[in-house]
Amino acid sequence: MTDELVIGGKKLTNRLFLGTGKFPSKKMITEALRRSGAQVVTVALRRIDFEAQEENVLNYIPKDCILMPNTSGARNAEEAVRIAEIARAAGCGNWVKIEVISDNKYLLPDNYETVKATEILVKKGFVVLPYMHPDLMVAKRLQEAGAAAVMPLGSPIGSNRGLKTKEMIRILIEEIDLPVIVDAGIGRPSQAAEAMEMGAAAVLVNTAIATADDPPAMAEAFSLAVQAGRKAFLAGPGRIKEFAEASSPLTGFLR
Amino acid sequence: MTDELVIGGKKLTNRLFLGTGKFPSKKMITEALRRSGAQVVTVALRRIDFEAQEENVLNYIPKDCILMPNTSGARNAEEAVRIAEIARAAGCGNWVKIEVISDNKYLLPDNYETVKATEILVKKGFVVLPYMHPDLMVAKRLQEAGAAAVMPLGSPIGSNRGLKTKEMIRILIEEIDLPVIVDAGIGRPSQAAEAMEMGAAAVLVNTAIATADDPPAMAEAFSLAVQAGRKAFLAGPGRIKEFAEASSPLTGFLR
Amino acid sequence: MTDELVIGGKKLTNRLFLGTGKFPSKKMITEALRRSGAQVVTVALRRIDFEAQEENVLNYIPKDCILMPNTSGARNAEEAVRIAEIARAAGCGNWVKIEVISDNKYLLPDNYETVKATEILVKKGFVVLPYMHPDLMVAKRLQEAGAAAVMPLGSPIGSNRGLKTKEMIRILIEEIDLPVIVDAGIGRPSQAAEAMEMGAAAVLVNTAIATADDPPAMAEAFSLAVQAGRKAFLAGPGRIKEFAEASSPLTGFLR
Amino acid sequence: MTDELVIGGKKLTNRLFLGTGKFPSKKMITEALRRSGAQVVTVALRRIDFEAQEENVLNYIPKDCILMPNTSGARNAEEAVRIAEIARAAGCGNWVKIEVISDNKYLLPDNYETVKATEILVKKGFVVLPYMHPDLMVAKRLQEAGAAAVMPLGSPIGSNRGLKTKEMIRILIEEIDLPVIVDAGIGRPSQAAEAMEMGAAAVLVNTAIATADDPPAMAEAFSLAVQAGRKAFLAGPGRIKEFAEASSPLTGFLR
Repeated sequence: MTDELVIGGKKLTNRLFLGTGKFPSKKMITEALRRSGAQVVTVALRRIDFEAQEENVLNYIPKDCILMPNTSGARNAEEAVRIAEIARAAGCGNWVKIEVISDNKYLLPDNYETVKATEILVKKGFVVLPYMHPDLMVAKRLQEAGAAAVMPLGSPIGSNRGLKTKEMIRILIEEIDLPVIVDAGIGRPSQAAEAMEMGAAAVLVNTAIATADDPPAMAEAFSLAVQAGRKAFLAGPGRIKEFAEASSPLTGFLR
Repeated sequence: MTDELVIGGKKLTNRLFLGTGKFPSKKMITEALRRSGAQVVTVALRRIDFEAQEENVLNYIPKDCILMPNTSGARNAEEAVRIAEIARAAGCGNWVKIEVISDNKYLLPDNYETVKATEILVKKGFVVLPYMHPDLMVAKRLQEAGAAAVMPLGSPIGSNRGLKTKEMIRILIEEIDLPVIVDAGIGRPSQAAEAMEMGAAAVLVNTAIATADDPPAMAEAFSLAVQAGRKAFLAGPGRIKEFAEASSPLTGFLR
Repeated sequence: MTDELVIGGKKLTNRLFLGTGKFPSKKMITEALRRSGAQVVTVALRRIDFEAQEENVLNYIPKDCILMPNTSGARNAEEAVRIAEIARAAGCGNWVKIEVISDNKYLLPDNYETVKATEILVKKGFVVLPYMHPDLMVAKRLQEAGAAAVMPLGSPIGSNRGLKTKEMIRILIEEIDLPVIVDAGIGRPSQAAEAMEMGAAAVLVNTAIATADDPPAMAEAFSLAVQAGRKAFLAGPGRIKEFAEASSPLTGFLR
Repeated sequence: MTDELVIGGKKLTNRLFLGTGKFPSKKMITEALRRSGAQVVTVALRRIDFEAQEENVLNYIPKDCILMPNTSGARNAEEAVRIAEIARAAGCGNWVKIEVISDNKYLLPDNYETVKATEILVKKGFVVLPYMHPDLMVAKRLQEAGAAAVMPLGSPIGSNRGLKTKEMIRILIEEIDLPVIVDAGIGRPSQAAEAMEMGAAAVLVNTAIATADDPPAMAEAFSLAVQAGRKAFLAGPGRIKEFAEASSPLTGFLR
């Protein structure tokens, strides 16, 4: 039996979602996607140039990837909705990752406006994946609003600081009936693995891959780590103990 | 170019070493080895029964695995040396993992006796891998004594507590010219990945795999995590930042 | 020059706020207040019995303490406002700690309803201190609404889990122009000290004191820790370094 | 009943030990001692100039402090013994903190040579407090050798990195019948408090105080934190819980 994640009717077998910003070259995006096997890719609409053929990031994304345009640049719900609609009209499909950010230093999401945008976009038929501050009460509102998943941050975007909100993400995973996809801040494959071991449904990684010395190799590393974490979650890890526990019988061999 | 770890003249491509204690059945050891692709296996000599065919753990270890008998049960250098010699005489090869433990609660290694045993066994032609408390000055002595690697503990054996000695392992990796193999305490694949990201040469896992609900699946999870961590180490991870850093240009799309 | 914290026109010199729930006896509240020197005390209105003299917790609170009734039990803004008004009408003063909670397992605050209640109660002339999820955008809204401080949680109420939201509290302290008072989850004096070292204006502690074996002694311990952390913050702590740095000159004595 | 720590026959009520290196001026040492109330002070013999009156650090240490000369600069047991004897002959008393360090980057102690020096100095009638790597088996040897306490490092000297060896210190406290005094690496009062909460008998701090912007104020902060941690340890802290636990009854007020 395959372990599948179903979002918006699509069956996913790869639980690493990729972002496309900050890569040293667009060709590397293609290579990172290939090496990681990622099936879902997020793109800021601002980076999609529908005229100039060469620069259009979409040309570097394989056709079988699911495009998840994000509303990066939106400072409120209204702007997020407009960006989502432009993306859909341009043929980018009906998935959308909502990002509403008005704080330029820590790039923290505005949960209020995110809930509003989610309510509107769900009604307009989008598959909505909101980027959010990991607040349980807000996750419940997003669930009610019809979100397809929630995407809590691990730490500020691009900081590579890891799962600093672990305690709250753990609670979301436990209490919410939607896939929890950790987005932002994951800086090392070990952190991606840990999120998956906790029961996250997927992780989205961008900066940690794009700014590595060798982005395609790092993409593969993250992909392996996500598989490792998922398999460990399913394999039922053992208990953590206070004391030691011998791997071998302690009655001596020589006695 | 293959990324190889060379120990005692053997070229290893898989950096997950497996322990064989605590498995619910011996058949599962074979399956865990197969699923993980591990090339080095440690066995307590006490569990090797050279008479009774059915119970002999060696029958469950594929011929192409490198056997690394351990001296579990030894309470001082002398006992460790005797166990190593018995193992070699019995045809288990010339690798030996030294374990000298007299503390029954936390099973912490005795660095003094471990250095002594290393000195003796190296002279007798063994490939010696000592399990140790991560003390830099002791690691230097083991290096001088001719150890093939050092195996510092992450936390007490079988505790699944993870890399509690991270700070000291980091220093060993930086200062010692031997492969550093983290042994004991690793409870989750994410922790194995983290050890590899720090530059560990390999990790040895036993309890976390053997006591999982599905040991072979967990063995595979660990194997993937070790590969992920190693690849990340080689791929040159990006810097950790205090503030956020936008993945996409912050100049708004709609403005 | 005295280091004072000014809230609602009151000058405070003691930065440990105390909660009054869960104490083994009401007399111990008096003793804990005395030993800690706390100047601000929070009381759930539900525990104030205006009829039965003996049971009324207010009788156990010294007259010179500032009473901060909390709206514990409120599940939305409307209920919080009603509780605050009843408290004021009953002579409990015009401070109020807003607690709006509808999640019975983790007792996490509802930031939405908290902002609403804050807006209403500020207009009604209350000194409003809202208990909140440490979300920067919400803290900004509370600031705009006229809150006297923000009270982010460290971890779930009564869990003694400590500063699990440290990363987000650090950002609030840096970005918000209100006193940040860490409330909930602080389980050990060391954690209170750490919050103060980070620049928190005060901490509120209840469970960790009330459920200690010796609550008054623990109250004193917390009071000392809060002073320690505050003094350290003001004394300008030194830099954290990757390597060691000798306390004494390394040129040997005997050479 | 006073809570006293008895070492070498001396009854101590203050559990903060102070180091005297790196202070911006010698006068500040006096002031830091006064503000902290420290009763035990360590001094590197190299900094004691028995000729030049003005520079002699001993002139800045109040007469009622217990002097604990340290063997900083010693690279092996022999050198440590010589330094200790010179100190005693010069009238510095019979306490000695053994420091044997040959690693110039991380300044990690050499446990082997430290055990040797301890054995010799105990026989010569010294009150011996060895600085050590927190290795349980070595602590047991130091105990057998007659050490008056063990002084495990929290992290490298002067690094301000805190209790990175917490797991191992916890085990020493549990298993060893000597006072455990955490020495080196403590960078913040909160970390000193945490060590005391774990059951450490005392902490020794130097760099974190001496390199603060205001060393005497920081000395006071540490002193308060140590008292806080000790009191908390004695007051019997409550249990850490996975879930929240209401401070007030959850049956609503208004219902």
